Amino acid sequence: MPHFTLEYSANLDGLLDMDQTVEVVREAAVETGIFPLGGIRVRAVRCEHYAIADGCNSYGFLDMVLRLGEGRDLATRKKAGEHIFRALSAHLDPVFANSKFALSFDMQINDKETSWKRNNIHDALKAEAVHG
Amino acid sequence: MPHFTLEYSANLDGLLDMDQTVEVVREAAVETGIFPLGGIRVRAVRCEHYAIADGCNSYGFLDMVLRLGEGRDLATRKKAGEHIFRALSAHLDPVFANSKFALSFDMQINDKETSWKRNNIHDALKAEAVHG
Amino acid sequence: MPHFTLEYSANLDGLLDMDQTVEVVREAAVETGIFPLGGIRVRAVRCEHYAIADGCNSYGFLDMVLRLGEGRDLATRKKAGEHIFRALSAHLDPVFANSKFALSFDMQINDKETSWKRNNIHDALKAEAVHG
Repeated sequence: MPHFTLEYSANLDGLLDMDQTVEVVREAAVETGIFPLGGIRVRAVRCEHYAIADGCNSYGFLDMVLRLGEGRDLATRKKAGEHIFRALSAHLDPVFANSKFALSFDMQINDKETSWKRNNIHDALKAEAVHG
Repeated sequence: MPHFTLEYSANLDGLLDMDQTVEVVREAAVETGIFPLGGIRVRAVRCEHYAIADGCNSYGFLDMVLRLGEGRDLATRKKAGEHIFRALSAHLDPVFANSKFALSFDMQINDKETSWKRNNIHDALKAEAVHG
Repeated sequence: MPHFTLEYSANLDGLLDMDQTVEVVREAAVETGIFPLGGIRVRAVRCEHYAIADGCNSYGFLDMVLRLGEGRDLATRKKAGEHIFRALSAHLDPVFANSKFALSFDMQINDKETSWKRNNIHDALKAEAVHG
């Protein structure tokens, strides 16, 4: 945890650098201070086929879902979500200026009772902090 | 809202036009009358790697998930879902006639407390309605 | 039901055979004995763009989500999840040995009130059992 998955319409190619975009989300997630660094995973899925609103082909979208673990209260989640959304939205200002576009962001909470993980990045980060 | 994401096995290539398919879902979603036009986003994700049932490679699937906002009662959601599923299922009749196939559709409700959006398509549609 | 969706960082190419990987999950799902064979669908989505932890490009991830139907108690779901996770995790031992990597697995339960399906694989499997 946390997992950020961005789905986006393929017509964003050329309008938006997606490597930069996932990095913007990652940095904003770190800045919230509520996530363990080694657990942050952001990724984007390009959608070749899509249909939006009245079916106009020039419309675009980017939809982000965050799945996170239990244990953070609503106020904490709202504040963190607000911060991340603002960063992503600002990054998309040029897209909004040049196209008709829909951006969205929703959160889901994973059930800790049915959650499994294995991760050697946490240890790598600790070793870096000590020896780096 | 609403978000429709279709995941499908890559062996549908050649059996199904995916641009047509997302359009069928979009039109059915509009017909339900319960969604703001400018919020409808349908997309498809092609899955190159998959394993189905007893592992037979010729099986295929299409799985659709709708995420929608709070505020519609169960009867409304069931009626809308039924309408959309029927349209999609009818569109897939040739696939069922020619292959062993699994179609599915589930709904999820987003928590309005942790939901953010920015969308200039609504205004574009209004401007079109006035000046178009 | 059940649906297993694996999202993974594109840098797994060359480290992991994804056709084998979805097959490992499918077999483990069958072994749990709690799923109808004809309903099992496993697929993987390759993510070209991602950002992990402190942004180091060599990190990788694989995140699996299982969506399943209602009607199985927590103990049953935990036992099945544990079995599937162990199989997947063991399959990824070489990846953990050779890279910094994050594996995760979460379950979600679909609302049976808003769930639709059409599937001719069940009948194909029955015919096979009788005539095969």
